[in-house]
Amino acid sequence: MRCDKLWKNAHLATLAGAEPGLGIVRDGVVAMRDGLIVYAGPAADAPAFDAGVVVDCAGRWITPGLIDCHTHLVHGGSRAHEFELRLAGASYEEIARAGGGILSTMRATRDADVAALTASALPRLDALMAEGATTVEVKSGYGLTLEAELHMLRAARRLGQARPVRITTTFLGAHALPPEFSGDADGYIDFLCDTVLPAAAGEGLADAVDAFCEGIGFTPDQTARMFAAAAAHGLPIKLHADQLSNLSGAALAARHGALSADHLEHTDADGVAAMAAAGTVATLLPGAFYFVRETKLPPVDAFRAAGVPMALATDCNPGTSPLTSLLLVMNMGATLFRMTVDECIAGVTRNAARALGLHHEIGTLEAGKSCDLAIWDIERPADLVYRMGFTPLHARVWRGN
Amino acid sequence: MRCDKLWKNAHLATLAGAEPGLGIVRDGVVAMRDGLIVYAGPAADAPAFDAGVVVDCAGRWITPGLIDCHTHLVHGGSRAHEFELRLAGASYEEIARAGGGILSTMRATRDADVAALTASALPRLDALMAEGATTVEVKSGYGLTLEAELHMLRAARRLGQARPVRITTTFLGAHALPPEFSGDADGYIDFLCDTVLPAAAGEGLADAVDAFCEGIGFTPDQTARMFAAAAAHGLPIKLHADQLSNLSGAALAARHGALSADHLEHTDADGVAAMAAAGTVATLLPGAFYFVRETKLPPVDAFRAAGVPMALATDCNPGTSPLTSLLLVMNMGATLFRMTVDECIAGVTRNAARALGLHHEIGTLEAGKSCDLAIWDIERPADLVYRMGFTPLHARVWRGN
Ligand SMILES: [Zn+2]
Ligand SMILES: [Zn+2]
Repeated sequence: MRCDKLWKNAHLATLAGAEPGLGIVRDGVVAMRDGLIVYAGPAADAPAFDAGVVVDCAGRWITPGLIDCHTHLVHGGSRAHEFELRLAGASYEEIARAGGGILSTMRATRDADVAALTASALPRLDALMAEGATTVEVKSGYGLTLEAELHMLRAARRLGQARPVRITTTFLGAHALPPEFSGDADGYIDFLCDTVLPAAAGEGLADAVDAFCEGIGFTPDQTARMFAAAAAHGLPIKLHADQLSNLSGAALAARHGALSADHLEHTDADGVAAMAAAGTVATLLPGAFYFVRETKLPPVDAFRAAGVPMALATDCNPGTSPLTSLLLVMNMGATLFRMTVDECIAGVTRNAARALGLHHEIGTLEAGKSCDLAIWDIERPADLVYRMGFTPLHARVWRGN
Repeated sequence: MRCDKLWKNAHLATLAGAEPGLGIVRDGVVAMRDGLIVYAGPAADAPAFDAGVVVDCAGRWITPGLIDCHTHLVHGGSRAHEFELRLAGASYEEIARAGGGILSTMRATRDADVAALTASALPRLDALMAEGATTVEVKSGYGLTLEAELHMLRAARRLGQARPVRITTTFLGAHALPPEFSGDADGYIDFLCDTVLPAAAGEGLADAVDAFCEGIGFTPDQTARMFAAAAAHGLPIKLHADQLSNLSGAALAARHGALSADHLEHTDADGVAAMAAAGTVATLLPGAFYFVRETKLPPVDAFRAAGVPMALATDCNPGTSPLTSLLLVMNMGATLFRMTVDECIAGVTRNAARALGLHHEIGTLEAGKSCDLAIWDIERPADLVYRMGFTPLHARVWRGN
């Protein structure tokens, strides 16, 4: 059987087959043709390959390329100084006067053009890729005008042209209420549904639609209107749900067939049941949990018991999770949320793919899927979760290269 | 004025001058001759240099090279599988039966020779150096026999020959009671004081002496005997103190003039006062705090109020802190311990040098000190503390190279 490239003498965590489990194959091979996996499994069972290139992995481990399924990677400005002021004891008023908070990110984002937004996001993307990420989701939501939201989404698309990585985009106009609509959240939702989302969808800039359903964000009714608008454009939905309080956002998202509900610290049993029934992924974001010193844990045991797939992501954003390491996310998933090693690894591969609706294309090592690989200098997959501040990536392969 | 190398067009965080504060110099230069800094300060005030090499830093920031003043970098084996079992719900008995716990590290360390111990520690050292570390302390304490303790210290010395980095060694024979001395901790302390420490000191393998003063470690009396033995060899002392309970270890260490007391979650007001009076550094280890999900915070406010210098270190060890990132340690110092940005940066430079008794040689950018530099692609020093999973190191200089 002809193939373009063959990786041999490797151990595989295929993530194929039923959950839980990593689909371990000792002494495995991966064969690629035209960017797709044509075989991933035991060397002993492999067909005889006529390979253009053979890579000897010398006993290393191969996992699917990592997937960061929830980021705000594109944004203007920095919040490092605000972080510094807060640690030094500044009050919220002092920080606001010094230009802090989400509105400072909004202003800096609006002030940047597409090239500047792309350039500032590239080091963050490079950090993720240096740890084996091959797919990264990027949200809008700091522009909050027609022009600035489109700028953000165009910058996200440009990231995918600038680097060998798959970028998926999510329209998050309903992230915060911009000052222009102060006191008129419903009017802002009208504007998003009637003007901004149609423009983004018309340009092919949005692969999904998200919202921030929260007391300080948007109501369940407003969120449902965004979902209806997404459906009208044929776009799948996601939701920032139940992070700071329980507005039954997870259940709302599940009832609308959301790909994922994200954060979920305050999700209750009804929400878990609704997600299980709908097949909605629970995307957990331990970096934000850690950074804001949250103490309310998401209901991991309930998700596990109900069979809700759990994904893990960086939530990379300047205000609550300035984090660009999926390895650290896995450690936090284990240390802070008591997820198992297998759950953490599935969270940034198989289940992250599902959270993006891409589980037929990426997230496991199986014939027919994109040949996105991370090749690791480790003794066992648990090393990826156990260690902190250590990047054992040996090589990264995206679409076969 | 002649110099070998000049770094210009840089912003400096010199860490010179009185605490707190980073000793910021905008538009600064650093000049080096024979491996030492001959000038670090404003370009405007600099003498006219005749430099062999000039490096244009293009507006980057320079800090002192980072110092990790508390590690167990040298050890055999891995505890990743134990971590995995515990997350999967295994009991302590099951883990012990599977060969877990500190004794598993002891056995693996005893089974390794100096070359193997060195080789297994190198990737951990490389990870620290990749983030700008120029000095790393390494403890013994997993061998717990004469031969294996010496092996560990020799491996530590070899690390310093294998890489351009300063390694300082600490004898920590009193880390755990080996099975050979079960029920006879005093006999083990005799053995350490009469046999192992003299051998280590005689070979020049120990720059300091440390112990684990704890209910599950050694008593204050046994610790004091180790301190007396250290004094007899002219060696400075450190102590693992007050981590799990308050045995007044910090006060004990301070009364013996310790360079540092380390961990300190349970240190009380008497301990703080004793440390302040003695000039003993508080070395805080947020990686272990995080990894074991400790909730009792060290008394940071009391240390600050009393003027006790605070250092931060990785505590890199396989059981409770498999961590090799001083950048992450700084973020944890801020996020978990509410230390300020300036305190976190001083904690891995100036105060870490003091915790090793090396503050006259390293830890700040000042004339006469070793030219150990970390050059960063950042906008402001706070970026080093604020971000997670991001390594903005541009270049690392050790002893001028
Ligand atoms: Zn988010
Ligand atoms: Zn230690």
